[in-house]
Amino acid sequence: MKNTKSTLSGKFYSADIISLDQFDPVTLKKLFSLVPKMASIAKNAQPSKLLSGKIVTLLFYEPSSRTFASFAGAIKQLGGETIDILNPLQFSSVSKGENFEDTIRVFEAYCDAIIIRHPEIGTAKKAALIAASVPIINAGDGNGEHPTQALLDLYTIYEKYKKLDGLTGVMAGDPLNSRTIHSLIKGLSLYKNNTIYLLSPKELRLNRDDFNSYTEKGVKLIEIYSEKEIPKNANFWYWTRVQKERFKDKKTYEKVKDSFYLTSNLIKNFAGKDTILMDPLPRVGNIDMSVDQDPRALYLRNQIRNGMYVRMALLSLILNKK
Amino acid sequence: MKNTKSTLSGKFYSADIISLDQFDPVTLKKLFSLVPKMASIAKNAQPSKLLSGKIVTLLFYEPSSRTFASFAGAIKQLGGETIDILNPLQFSSVSKGENFEDTIRVFEAYCDAIIIRHPEIGTAKKAALIAASVPIINAGDGNGEHPTQALLDLYTIYEKYKKLDGLTGVMAGDPLNSRTIHSLIKGLSLYKNNTIYLLSPKELRLNRDDFNSYTEKGVKLIEIYSEKEIPKNANFWYWTRVQKERFKDKKTYEKVKDSFYLTSNLIKNFAGKDTILMDPLPRVGNIDMSVDQDPRALYLRNQIRNGMYVRMALLSLILNKK
Amino acid sequence: MKNTKSTLSGKFYSADIISLDQFDPVTLKKLFSLVPKMASIAKNAQPSKLLSGKIVTLLFYEPSSRTFASFAGAIKQLGGETIDILNPLQFSSVSKGENFEDTIRVFEAYCDAIIIRHPEIGTAKKAALIAASVPIINAGDGNGEHPTQALLDLYTIYEKYKKLDGLTGVMAGDPLNSRTIHSLIKGLSLYKNNTIYLLSPKELRLNRDDFNSYTEKGVKLIEIYSEKEIPKNANFWYWTRVQKERFKDKKTYEKVKDSFYLTSNLIKNFAGKDTILMDPLPRVGNIDMSVDQDPRALYLRNQIRNGMYVRMALLSLILNKK
Repeated sequence: MKNTKSTLSGKFYSADIISLDQFDPVTLKKLFSLVPKMASIAKNAQPSKLLSGKIVTLLFYEPSSRTFASFAGAIKQLGGETIDILNPLQFSSVSKGENFEDTIRVFEAYCDAIIIRHPEIGTAKKAALIAASVPIINAGDGNGEHPTQALLDLYTIYEKYKKLDGLTGVMAGDPLNSRTIHSLIKGLSLYKNNTIYLLSPKELRLNRDDFNSYTEKGVKLIEIYSEKEIPKNANFWYWTRVQKERFKDKKTYEKVKDSFYLTSNLIKNFAGKDTILMDPLPRVGNIDMSVDQDPRALYLRNQIRNGMYVRMALLSLILNKK
Repeated sequence: MKNTKSTLSGKFYSADIISLDQFDPVTLKKLFSLVPKMASIAKNAQPSKLLSGKIVTLLFYEPSSRTFASFAGAIKQLGGETIDILNPLQFSSVSKGENFEDTIRVFEAYCDAIIIRHPEIGTAKKAALIAASVPIINAGDGNGEHPTQALLDLYTIYEKYKKLDGLTGVMAGDPLNSRTIHSLIKGLSLYKNNTIYLLSPKELRLNRDDFNSYTEKGVKLIEIYSEKEIPKNANFWYWTRVQKERFKDKKTYEKVKDSFYLTSNLIKNFAGKDTILMDPLPRVGNIDMSVDQDPRALYLRNQIRNGMYVRMALLSLILNKK
Repeated sequence: MKNTKSTLSGKFYSADIISLDQFDPVTLKKLFSLVPKMASIAKNAQPSKLLSGKIVTLLFYEPSSRTFASFAGAIKQLGGETIDILNPLQFSSVSKGENFEDTIRVFEAYCDAIIIRHPEIGTAKKAALIAASVPIINAGDGNGEHPTQALLDLYTIYEKYKKLDGLTGVMAGDPLNSRTIHSLIKGLSLYKNNTIYLLSPKELRLNRDDFNSYTEKGVKLIEIYSEKEIPKNANFWYWTRVQKERFKDKKTYEKVKDSFYLTSNLIKNFAGKDTILMDPLPRVGNIDMSVDQDPRALYLRNQIRNGMYVRMALLSLILNKK
């Protein structure tokens, strides 16, 4: 039996990882303190045995090859093994009409943990309530959460500044709909004195309930609608994409779109020498390729690597009883 | 070269596993004696090295994620590795017109065993006749056999009663068409003094040839057509589903279907305190979810776990030359 | 950072393997000298640790289960692990519009090498120019190259004759279009005094540019159009298929096709006792099944096994820094 279904604070053993809400500064500090060790394991020629003898099922109900590869890499870097179940709706008994409860109970019998990706919100939690003997890790449940993405974003900022309080950041794109923006605001609201500039078209600003809820937690949110309002020398820029499809009126899109395209010129004008440039990826028309060469651009460097390292740290905490 | 293509009795080394017919009580006893050790390996944090250095190809011509995961888990629990080839008709040279003989001879060159799943009856045997150097294991060949499913069913009964003779069981559903019912009758007919009540609509009872052939082997078969005829205190119930599609006359289906839906009430009225409740899964409309809580219900517990343990035992015998 | 993007001659460390052009006789000798050791590792019950702790991504943009299985087997025989990414155009962020550059940079962060298969010529080289930290291995890029196929063909000849110069060979089929024929001619042209008879319909002979270019390198090419012109006692026959689709005039095809179907009778009349019979596979209507029993037929024996052994040798050189 799993020994906890509840909040993680301070205890990771055999725990489900469903939501960023399970984490607090103490837990995050503990988790992040392990990441450099994980990085050196990944770079080291010697194989790690932290997960040796452990088998993790990657149960992906929708394609996401980056998240899949990052988790698979994390498990194998630590000496564990995977059972890869891709598209079970198409390729399994699920297609014969099996209910979700039976599916989870079958797969948990074969492994030490299940990492689940699903297009529907709430599915990871549902799996966690079903699984009797192994932890469930949410690898993205549609419009719900993708907690390890949030953890890697937080760690990438932490890696640079060695703290997560007293920071100023810019988040560009689509605060209304972006799962990653919501998660990162939530994460930063666990710490004091953070200020976030939300750059978006008016149509895509946060809804007022979310705005108030985040603000009450203590994070300062400043909504801006043009790149000219970007503060100088922010600690980080988090640059998501604005989807044309969100606009009823395509003319409005054409008018505002340049504000949300990240160029070297914009960086020259507003970023400081330490401002780190982030993007949850995939990048599709939101960041100019010329920006990639900028040493401050971490989206194809630290963010990706940290994704694997943070997942390694998490798995080593969850699957290693001490 | 493989040193046997023949019946397994007493020798497992480098052998193909195509049919339950290869097994006799001596072989089964040997196999089952290893299962508890396999269970403790699977639960143990320490990795096993029984299959270390062994590579097994999972060649699945049709989707079956449970069987796939169970075999993959079994191999990896023992320290072996897999090469996963899913849907080769769609994703391989087979689609370029390669014949089956060449496909098998190519794959056998890369591994120590091939586990094959195929929609057509006889394919596993065909593969075994082709493969020159590695054992072939049948993971289901359409309306043919699925010997490891039969072995896990037999083991689940054996685990409870420490014997496979002198038992009384109920098998409900579709004796005419169910591959798993046929296999389990076959398996139990290897032992003495077994009585099986076959509960089914008249339309779906065994054909007379099969009935006579099983009866001649010594198992006693009693056909019943209503749940009211279920004997009290049977040793096991094996509850498969009745497919509406089998009935020409849908009214007949509506009339009889309640006899074949397993409920807590039915259990209360006819089962004994030791009667174990089994189902080969997937369950689709044949067992009420409330039954899952019953400690006698083994379909989502022992049966699934035993599936992996029995496969581990079989692989360790086949792939470990002593 | 990778320490070379250039020709391999004499140094393999952290190198991309994109084309047969990277190889010279010194490099090939070094590579081939490792193959027998790899064969004994594959046959040995003891697992190898040459790649332990190494993770290799198999990034297959088109199906090729033989090449996939051969590489996966090679990696696992050496104690390494794989991340399998099949059909990313269908099952990944690529489908969301991610550019190829980002895809490669993401995947390289999780592993120690990427083996790429792609339907478009030039893609492996493109990947090699992008990847900043891991070697790229070309597993076939459409009409481009498939260097490890060429290496296994060369090794299979070398294994028999212990040399790659002074040989006479027959290559049948489609010299105009066959990637494998081109590669093998290229490989043999690195050595002195080789003579190749190219047996094909006139419509499918080499184009004059290729003919001249190979001839200038020193290999002697003799074009023949009927099986009656096959020289006696050649060292090897390399028998590819002629596709009916290549002929505008189907009557011409019917007239010539028998010249390009390999039978036991043809072998009896023209082959010597040491002539080895090769085919890059899949075989589709170009070699009679009765030929398989001939001990000189290596296409379902040495060629396949050598494919895995040569890949093992290559990976052990590339991924083991000394």
